[in-house]
Amino acid sequence: MGDVLVIVIGTTDVSLIPGISIAGPSPEATHYTPALDVEYLLTGRPKTLDAVPVTPDGIPTPAVVTRALTRDLPKLVVDAGSRIPPRVPRVVLGGVPGGDIRQGAMPREAAEEIAAGGRLLGRQLAPLGRVVIGESIPGGTTTAMAILLALGYNAWGRTSSSSPDNPKELKIKVVRDALARISPPLDAITAVAEVGDPVHLAVASIALGVVEGGGEVILAGGTQMAAAAALYKALGGDMERLAVATTRWIVEDKSADFLGLMREVGVRRIYISKTSFATSRCRGLRAYERGYVKEGVAMGYALWHAETKGVDPLPHVEAELERLGSCFA
Amino acid sequence: MGDVLVIVIGTTDVSLIPGISIAGPSPEATHYTPALDVEYLLTGRPKTLDAVPVTPDGIPTPAVVTRALTRDLPKLVVDAGSRIPPRVPRVVLGGVPGGDIRQGAMPREAAEEIAAGGRLLGRQLAPLGRVVIGESIPGGTTTAMAILLALGYNAWGRTSSSSPDNPKELKIKVVRDALARISPPLDAITAVAEVGDPVHLAVASIALGVVEGGGEVILAGGTQMAAAAALYKALGGDMERLAVATTRWIVEDKSADFLGLMREVGVRRIYISKTSFATSRCRGLRAYERGYVKEGVAMGYALWHAETKGVDPLPHVEAELERLGSCFA
Repeated sequence: MGDVLVIVIGTTDVSLIPGISIAGPSPEATHYTPALDVEYLLTGRPKTLDAVPVTPDGIPTPAVVTRALTRDLPKLVVDAGSRIPPRVPRVVLGGVPGGDIRQGAMPREAAEEIAAGGRLLGRQLAPLGRVVIGESIPGGTTTAMAILLALGYNAWGRTSSSSPDNPKELKIKVVRDALARISPPLDAITAVAEVGDPVHLAVASIALGVVEGGGEVILAGGTQMAAAAALYKALGGDMERLAVATTRWIVEDKSADFLGLMREVGVRRIYISKTSFATSRCRGLRAYERGYVKEGVAMGYALWHAETKGVDPLPHVEAELERLGSCFA
Repeated sequence: MGDVLVIVIGTTDVSLIPGISIAGPSPEATHYTPALDVEYLLTGRPKTLDAVPVTPDGIPTPAVVTRALTRDLPKLVVDAGSRIPPRVPRVVLGGVPGGDIRQGAMPREAAEEIAAGGRLLGRQLAPLGRVVIGESIPGGTTTAMAILLALGYNAWGRTSSSSPDNPKELKIKVVRDALARISPPLDAITAVAEVGDPVHLAVASIALGVVEGGGEVILAGGTQMAAAAALYKALGGDMERLAVATTRWIVEDKSADFLGLMREVGVRRIYISKTSFATSRCRGLRAYERGYVKEGVAMGYALWHAETKGVDPLPHVEAELERLGSCFA
């Protein structure tokens, strides 16, 4: 049995705050990004908008890397709560899009639905192979920081960013405003309902169900997966049975503290992709070495998956970018 | 790799026509049945209503048999278009509930979404094992008849019923009214949009995707699966790679013509469960031998699956009915 790739998508209104997220051409456009990511991942082109999965500067979304390197794997999209539903088959859990955490993320009942639905889905997936869970949620590094703090971890300014200039002061300010309403440590459901988002809870709950069902799990992502792992732990998940896979770019990000967060949360097994894009003939991929993108849509896992098979990822990613007409020298 | 059980649910307003369906305590209640079926199948109890999956006379829904016999299998619910969404994780394809076929079943675009979404889902499922596709849609034997006729098969009065008294005259009248608008043979999408429902098209499209992805498919159901197989064929599916599994009760149903329909559609491989419930200590199961229920929610496959493992299904089904407090002598 091979791996099954589950991509959990959702939105948070945190991404509408100007300057928080560069995962879209404008704050409003970030709400389209998860849908476009999974439409492209499954079909090779975005469907909801006539767009390419590449910025105007030629920098590809991480889904390009994941698509290029995981053609052999079955993929399942889970929509934990998105303002823009993707036009591909998607598992819905009964969740809702996340609100602005300064006012509250979602009704408690919605968080409970996500947790129960995610867990039940995980149980069903457990016999199918190792379940790899990635994410797409613009604004997610901000809500991850808030979730970790709400659960009692000192995460101030320690989550990463898809920008080379991590807007940490702004993120800290938003999270501080959100946390002013609550008194950590909170339980997982309350933390998410108050200052979280649908995606981190869905990732944690699916992982819990898989592990309860006797299966194996890899959380595929950067510092956001510290928040997902912390929720998993708070829901009673066994930390010995959880692994995280991410990129070199995340681990080396000096604006964040991936390894420190993972250690504090109690994640023991970490797989880190080694690939460099420094020698790429595509400008947009070389930008990854300057701190753009770093993670998302299970990119770190996809690179590591190729590496463990002895495949050099770069030519495959370049070929996909070429196909998209976006490999600019 | 084992089997993966996919249950496709949906509703058609045909089931609201008094006398057409006994899959619910009233015509209106039939719209709850698919949701209750899959909630019970995945969790052991219906969630949307405080109900038991057993009629007041003690006759269990076929989901009881399926749950009792497929505990070892991963299950995925696909909601092709339901008026009452189930409160369990479900894959949505972008379809809509089916209308009354005398006025038209759904917009063409909805049928196209179901076909594209189902096919894409099937592609993802293909590597996971043999994909077994069951259904729950009250009124489905009537829409199956209409779909087969719209595709050019002579199916008048040849589909089965969950009642021992197949209301064939009423079904034929409804289908005749529906077909008055169209000129068979139609293509698959037009046939479904005009006189079909979301479920048969989703079943056919998922099967097509699985086969295109190199996987194996079993359609798990009765005469409705003749309509699904006919849609699969009309969409270009390879008939050599399709199998159907059903119950003895369907094959022996003199009010219908399962084997004749399958032959005309071109299904070559048919698996038939042998189990009899005649000696059951539960009255509700003995009723199956008098023509109640017959199929649904992949029951025939579940029985056959147990039989091929050398397991006697009856004690397992009785134990589950006992757990529900519904094994009446």
